[in-house]
Amino acid sequence: MNCETAKDLTIAYIGGGSMNWAWEMIADLALEPKLSGVVRLYDIDAEAAKTNARIGNSVKDDPAAVGQWNYEAKDSLKAALTGADFVVISILPGTFDEMESDVHAPEKYGIYQSVGDTTGPGGVIRGMRAIPMFEEIGAAIGAYAPNAWVINYTNPMSVCTAALYRVFPGVKAFGCCHEVFHSQQLFAKMLEQEYGLTDVNKSDIKINVTGINHFSWLTEASYKTIDLIPLFKKYAKQCAGDGFALRESDSDTGNYFRNLNKVCFDLVNRYGAIPCAGDRHIAEFMPPWYLASPETAAGWGFGLTPVSYRKQARTRKLEQSAAIAAGRERFPLSRSGEEGTEQMKALLGLNPLFTNVNVPNIGQAEGLPLGAVVETNAVFSRDSLRPVWAGRLPEPVTRLVYNQAANQMMLLDACFKKDISLAFAAFVSDSLMTVNVNDAEKLFADMVDNTKAYLPGWRL
Amino acid sequence: MNCETAKDLTIAYIGGGSMNWAWEMIADLALEPKLSGVVRLYDIDAEAAKTNARIGNSVKDDPAAVGQWNYEAKDSLKAALTGADFVVISILPGTFDEMESDVHAPEKYGIYQSVGDTTGPGGVIRGMRAIPMFEEIGAAIGAYAPNAWVINYTNPMSVCTAALYRVFPGVKAFGCCHEVFHSQQLFAKMLEQEYGLTDVNKSDIKINVTGINHFSWLTEASYKTIDLIPLFKKYAKQCAGDGFALRESDSDTGNYFRNLNKVCFDLVNRYGAIPCAGDRHIAEFMPPWYLASPETAAGWGFGLTPVSYRKQARTRKLEQSAAIAAGRERFPLSRSGEEGTEQMKALLGLNPLFTNVNVPNIGQAEGLPLGAVVETNAVFSRDSLRPVWAGRLPEPVTRLVYNQAANQMMLLDACFKKDISLAFAAFVSDSLMTVNVNDAEKLFADMVDNTKAYLPGWRL
Amino acid sequence: MNCETAKDLTIAYIGGGSMNWAWEMIADLALEPKLSGVVRLYDIDAEAAKTNARIGNSVKDDPAAVGQWNYEAKDSLKAALTGADFVVISILPGTFDEMESDVHAPEKYGIYQSVGDTTGPGGVIRGMRAIPMFEEIGAAIGAYAPNAWVINYTNPMSVCTAALYRVFPGVKAFGCCHEVFHSQQLFAKMLEQEYGLTDVNKSDIKINVTGINHFSWLTEASYKTIDLIPLFKKYAKQCAGDGFALRESDSDTGNYFRNLNKVCFDLVNRYGAIPCAGDRHIAEFMPPWYLASPETAAGWGFGLTPVSYRKQARTRKLEQSAAIAAGRERFPLSRSGEEGTEQMKALLGLNPLFTNVNVPNIGQAEGLPLGAVVETNAVFSRDSLRPVWAGRLPEPVTRLVYNQAANQMMLLDACFKKDISLAFAAFVSDSLMTVNVNDAEKLFADMVDNTKAYLPGWRL
Amino acid sequence: MNCETAKDLTIAYIGGGSMNWAWEMIADLALEPKLSGVVRLYDIDAEAAKTNARIGNSVKDDPAAVGQWNYEAKDSLKAALTGADFVVISILPGTFDEMESDVHAPEKYGIYQSVGDTTGPGGVIRGMRAIPMFEEIGAAIGAYAPNAWVINYTNPMSVCTAALYRVFPGVKAFGCCHEVFHSQQLFAKMLEQEYGLTDVNKSDIKINVTGINHFSWLTEASYKTIDLIPLFKKYAKQCAGDGFALRESDSDTGNYFRNLNKVCFDLVNRYGAIPCAGDRHIAEFMPPWYLASPETAAGWGFGLTPVSYRKQARTRKLEQSAAIAAGRERFPLSRSGEEGTEQMKALLGLNPLFTNVNVPNIGQAEGLPLGAVVETNAVFSRDSLRPVWAGRLPEPVTRLVYNQAANQMMLLDACFKKDISLAFAAFVSDSLMTVNVNDAEKLFADMVDNTKAYLPGWRL
Repeated sequence: MNCETAKDLTIAYIGGGSMNWAWEMIADLALEPKLSGVVRLYDIDAEAAKTNARIGNSVKDDPAAVGQWNYEAKDSLKAALTGADFVVISILPGTFDEMESDVHAPEKYGIYQSVGDTTGPGGVIRGMRAIPMFEEIGAAIGAYAPNAWVINYTNPMSVCTAALYRVFPGVKAFGCCHEVFHSQQLFAKMLEQEYGLTDVNKSDIKINVTGINHFSWLTEASYKTIDLIPLFKKYAKQCAGDGFALRESDSDTGNYFRNLNKVCFDLVNRYGAIPCAGDRHIAEFMPPWYLASPETAAGWGFGLTPVSYRKQARTRKLEQSAAIAAGRERFPLSRSGEEGTEQMKALLGLNPLFTNVNVPNIGQAEGLPLGAVVETNAVFSRDSLRPVWAGRLPEPVTRLVYNQAANQMMLLDACFKKDISLAFAAFVSDSLMTVNVNDAEKLFADMVDNTKAYLPGWRL
Repeated sequence: MNCETAKDLTIAYIGGGSMNWAWEMIADLALEPKLSGVVRLYDIDAEAAKTNARIGNSVKDDPAAVGQWNYEAKDSLKAALTGADFVVISILPGTFDEMESDVHAPEKYGIYQSVGDTTGPGGVIRGMRAIPMFEEIGAAIGAYAPNAWVINYTNPMSVCTAALYRVFPGVKAFGCCHEVFHSQQLFAKMLEQEYGLTDVNKSDIKINVTGINHFSWLTEASYKTIDLIPLFKKYAKQCAGDGFALRESDSDTGNYFRNLNKVCFDLVNRYGAIPCAGDRHIAEFMPPWYLASPETAAGWGFGLTPVSYRKQARTRKLEQSAAIAAGRERFPLSRSGEEGTEQMKALLGLNPLFTNVNVPNIGQAEGLPLGAVVETNAVFSRDSLRPVWAGRLPEPVTRLVYNQAANQMMLLDACFKKDISLAFAAFVSDSLMTVNVNDAEKLFADMVDNTKAYLPGWRL
Repeated sequence: MNCETAKDLTIAYIGGGSMNWAWEMIADLALEPKLSGVVRLYDIDAEAAKTNARIGNSVKDDPAAVGQWNYEAKDSLKAALTGADFVVISILPGTFDEMESDVHAPEKYGIYQSVGDTTGPGGVIRGMRAIPMFEEIGAAIGAYAPNAWVINYTNPMSVCTAALYRVFPGVKAFGCCHEVFHSQQLFAKMLEQEYGLTDVNKSDIKINVTGINHFSWLTEASYKTIDLIPLFKKYAKQCAGDGFALRESDSDTGNYFRNLNKVCFDLVNRYGAIPCAGDRHIAEFMPPWYLASPETAAGWGFGLTPVSYRKQARTRKLEQSAAIAAGRERFPLSRSGEEGTEQMKALLGLNPLFTNVNVPNIGQAEGLPLGAVVETNAVFSRDSLRPVWAGRLPEPVTRLVYNQAANQMMLLDACFKKDISLAFAAFVSDSLMTVNVNDAEKLFADMVDNTKAYLPGWRL
Repeated sequence: MNCETAKDLTIAYIGGGSMNWAWEMIADLALEPKLSGVVRLYDIDAEAAKTNARIGNSVKDDPAAVGQWNYEAKDSLKAALTGADFVVISILPGTFDEMESDVHAPEKYGIYQSVGDTTGPGGVIRGMRAIPMFEEIGAAIGAYAPNAWVINYTNPMSVCTAALYRVFPGVKAFGCCHEVFHSQQLFAKMLEQEYGLTDVNKSDIKINVTGINHFSWLTEASYKTIDLIPLFKKYAKQCAGDGFALRESDSDTGNYFRNLNKVCFDLVNRYGAIPCAGDRHIAEFMPPWYLASPETAAGWGFGLTPVSYRKQARTRKLEQSAAIAAGRERFPLSRSGEEGTEQMKALLGLNPLFTNVNVPNIGQAEGLPLGAVVETNAVFSRDSLRPVWAGRLPEPVTRLVYNQAANQMMLLDACFKKDISLAFAAFVSDSLMTVNVNDAEKLFADMVDNTKAYLPGWRL
């Protein structure tokens, strides 16, 4: 009885033309000896899926590729999903043109966003585009792959994952995000500076996390017998002024991804719990304390990422993709650091796993709305994912996160009902929206107009 | 067996020097034939209590006074409470000097408040003064009158009532407010205009109310077979521009209490539920849509009440009080329209009563935090008050009310723990507080400083 | 604007051939001046419905008939329901032949039942017959009369009413039972004996009730200023031995409906809360303390009602019906004492009403399972029925009632899923089922076999 | 920075004279290289504690003893607890004389118990003795060791652990029981028989457990990629008649601990979930299906353990203890297989651990009463124990376990209030108590009388 490997798996990859998440999975699967099978790539950009299939199949020939996988581009959700063991979803809801409106349209009203893909006015509009896509995908999973495990990487994470559960309550889905790793890396760097400990393994840093994606918080953290919370608080005090950059590049003032963790430290000093995402994300969930203007953000040491940058980066990536598919360039075969492959193995029974995921709150995130998708730890085992009780955040933090989570549920409801005034209620309740209600209405109308191609069936 | 009247009752009146609520109760008791007994007046202003005792006892001689009551000024909570059947609380937390800071200090930062006694920065600071007073009163009730029914009239209503329950969970307390009557009067006026119905009895207008005091909402209203909700919505549409004044005086532009219900109508038009308080109260619970400036408020047709006005009014009232006590002027013996006496009769078993009260949420206010003091209907019977399930408000309204209720609970917790940073968290989360966090800190420090005489034991 | 009467109502009566509930409604409607309209009678026994239509129409000619109603027999649920304002349901689930098996088959195993229509093995099997009927009726209401108010009189009350909600969650249904009146009558008799109070009006006896139909309990009761709980406890002590009969006939030893309230008193003495149903019902919900044998029951002063008696009574009633329909006998036109007509008036807005009903538990019955149909007070107003928070019973009583309510929900689930082993789990968990599991399996198989004509679609 | 070991620990052992659990801990600590410190033994039998201290200290000299521990007998809870890092509790509530009454007194009424220490009439009475002891211990922990982690091994596990939380809500306590290992061993044996897999490591058998101690159930079980549930069900079907003994000794008909798992298999066949305790425990939680008589039990292949046997075993153990303390016999230094030491290491941060514990239900055991102590999985990390969401059992099993858990909470409440009639309500509700209520009262009176020395302060 072979119970040590899993062969002949079928993975359906929705958004299979992706050049980020999909490439990382191609690499990770190739480097994993215990798994093999087929990956079916589906993308509304059918060419992109075909290109990735070519890339994926070419990797087999790399001598380092110990896991044997075939890649097939599929032209329908049904074809991709039927009989799948796992479904991976990483799509872009709309194009960077819509994202340009999401991020930059609010600037006319003095509203600035550092990322614009999760919360803030931009996150709300992006959610309005993404939710109907996930409604369609969720329904297809219910119809064609009801027993599959579904891993979502798409932002806005919480509402996308929640949409799957709403349309197909039996779905076995969870959202996955590497943002929490950021805190673990900060701890590791502090351990090195403080105690000279090198080679600290991320998996030995045990944390308790609760909140919602990109706005989750640590209430416990330890490394072996060391309590890491007092250590972090010490740094938060000490580096409140100058910040503490994880990498050299993080302190580069010209960099759109600049992050000195000063926002994080400010919140630790105020509330005692540790937000576990980069400052660019955290700042967007707060009132405009840190995002009142580009200068304010600069003063807090973090960058605003313009969408023009993303467009340029995409152009470069497309060139690389073409080169690899044509055999002119070698596929970069190295572990991504992401957990997707480990999660699949855990769900197959091949290794125990205990990590953070985004799933509906059934009580594990005390104080947050039941049913909202929250980010907490969970135990993975064979065909099983069980949330771990994460407890309650300090009350002021609970209030902040509750508001965001409840707003996300209201947005989800608005999108399922195609109720524009309910969607506006979610938009105007966002914590960055301090303009008056009439301006808010105008901005909303503009942004909805810029994205209306993705709102079929709404009465606008 | 006499089971039709209640004699020899003992009522403890805390804040017994009051010239508003206490005078109304003196009148209502005198005009009620089924009750008699003694009223014990306690006030930190002992002279005021004595003056009211003189006034109360003088009323017995009025031929219209069918209820016989003796009034006694008492010099301690213990003396007032021991053996009481009912406790009435109407106190002023601090003086109008502190209230002046509550209402006007935030104006430096462009924050305007129309009342300033319930929410907004002023309401928060007033709560910080009031909560310790109610902590003391609640403890005394637990010790000296644990079986008494307790009626609170003091603002901020929710946190004051909640403080009683927190310090003595067995307390049989409820908060009482006439603000809901306002909506019933609006309905009556609409019924007259629309159908020519005159003599509509307030008690025949059946409503379902839920929310928190001064920010509660109607989801059902009827008069006999007539559904009043569509009628109200019709007026909300029709009078959105010019408003609809209940009384001539309400439309007087010079009046500090001006109220054209335009804020109410705007919210009805947005959300479908009917806020049941005057615009001056409602506006303070919203983001500064209606209170961005005095001009904005004027445009919405409601007045801001300066504390200087309250000071003048108090001076006039003191003169009247002295005149009555000296026998130079006659006490104005007419029914107040308040429900206190009816509530007492109902709790004695003398008549059934079904009305709105402020009590902790045990689920009757669906979607609002459990344990927060909410305003919903309740059934009164002999020694019994039972909340009626009020259901759920439209989601955007639930979000607004939830935030306020949760913030009140956080403030209550801060005051019981004397935790200044938690109190600031409540202060800065208020929906009128759109200034940046540093200005908020400065304003908070100033306002706390102005009220610090009432914050014994805090480390400021 | 006429807002004092309601004309042109449409009432759909399911089980319209009934000679009990339907006749009472014919009488009550005829005697009610504020209402008029049409009653549509539907019955699977079409002839019975036609006979009742004739009877109902003949009543119009009675000079005492102030309410004018037309009666029409309808031959489908659709025809009866379409456009109805009210739906009344009083059906017999099966015939008295099936009921004979329900009540008497268990006697082979030493299991005795005094009524056999609500709980016990007989109640479970009756539920299995009734639930699919209510599933059909509920679906038809959802399709043809989704806005109608639905009053159910059928036993087993809780599962029948719950079935309506499960198949059509938007249903506005409640179950109605006069069993609680029994306690009010006991109180009235005690008031007369103790204080000489005559003419006590039932509606002046205020109670707080919670539990499930036929096993609900009082925790508060008062008449004007008198607390009735100590009075009842005094009688429970005093009459524990000899009982206390409400009517002469109740103490008749030959009577199958004999009821000395000794079971009630025993439970009051044990637990402090007052069960508010007759002993014949209460005893069936307990372990076989009172129903170990016919002799045990006799010792506790209550009768077991054989189904043969019901068959005879039905024969007599059929004769009376034929005589009235043929004009040979006069219809007995007097108020029934039931509340159905008052409830309709209240839901039309014509009078306020506060009484006990059977509706799903949304928290009003603290300590009992959410979603189970419970019996508690509710406030009726125009198009509105709102449960009143009933609080918690003493813990031992909570345990007893919880078990029964949870078992009913399990039975309901079994019937919706047609899952025979789940149905058996409910059967064997009944508190009267103290036989061993093998005998329980045999008994269940026999009883199911006797009722299988009413179990279409089950795999038995 | 040493973060790989924990030195200078202080363990307080309450019931430190124990010759079972205490000896196992002496052995496990001696064999554990990462820990060292002092163990303080406290026992109401002071001599027993001193003897164990001598034994414990003698073990240091064993060359295999890699962990260095000093043992000290203490004469008060205060002395034992002050400053402790861990508290271990394994006491005998009363003596075997009281247990003799617990187990055998009910036999007069035809009520048989196979163990009598957890549930059934014997378990209830034992709980009445144990709860006041835990009330005292819990209060002492709150006073002297509020930050210590507390491991309880005493039965009845649930109420003892719950008593600690009730008296000191901040306690960091959990109950520990090896009964679940039994199921893991069954799985291992089945894996060997079915697939020839030997050397299956218990920790590689992943289970999901929920329920209450000695009556918990598996809903998921796997070994690597193998789903163990179908395998177990196959054996349950196949061995329903003859049983399946884990060890040769388990099938010995003369053995008081005989266990063929036929009760377990019967329940698996009925309900689909797997009870994870030995049949002797499980049978006591059910109605007397398996314990109607000694013959019934024999037919189901499990033994009843007479207390006379326990007395003899204790005599032998006392002789062994004396011999070891006197140096005449060698202490048996081998790993116990218990998890206590692993749990301590995990709570110190030295290794991750995921195992089942008994802690209050905060929602992890869906469908069971909140606040009751339940048995589910938990994640251990440095100073942290977090329950894992265990989901819901099949409804008939939920009903069975809910009843037991609710009854335990009622018993706990009765003991804290010293309310004998509430204790009787728990006693008479036990599922083995099918006698009539009068006999139940007599039996209860007798059993309470036999144990009254341990019920100080009760009015009996």
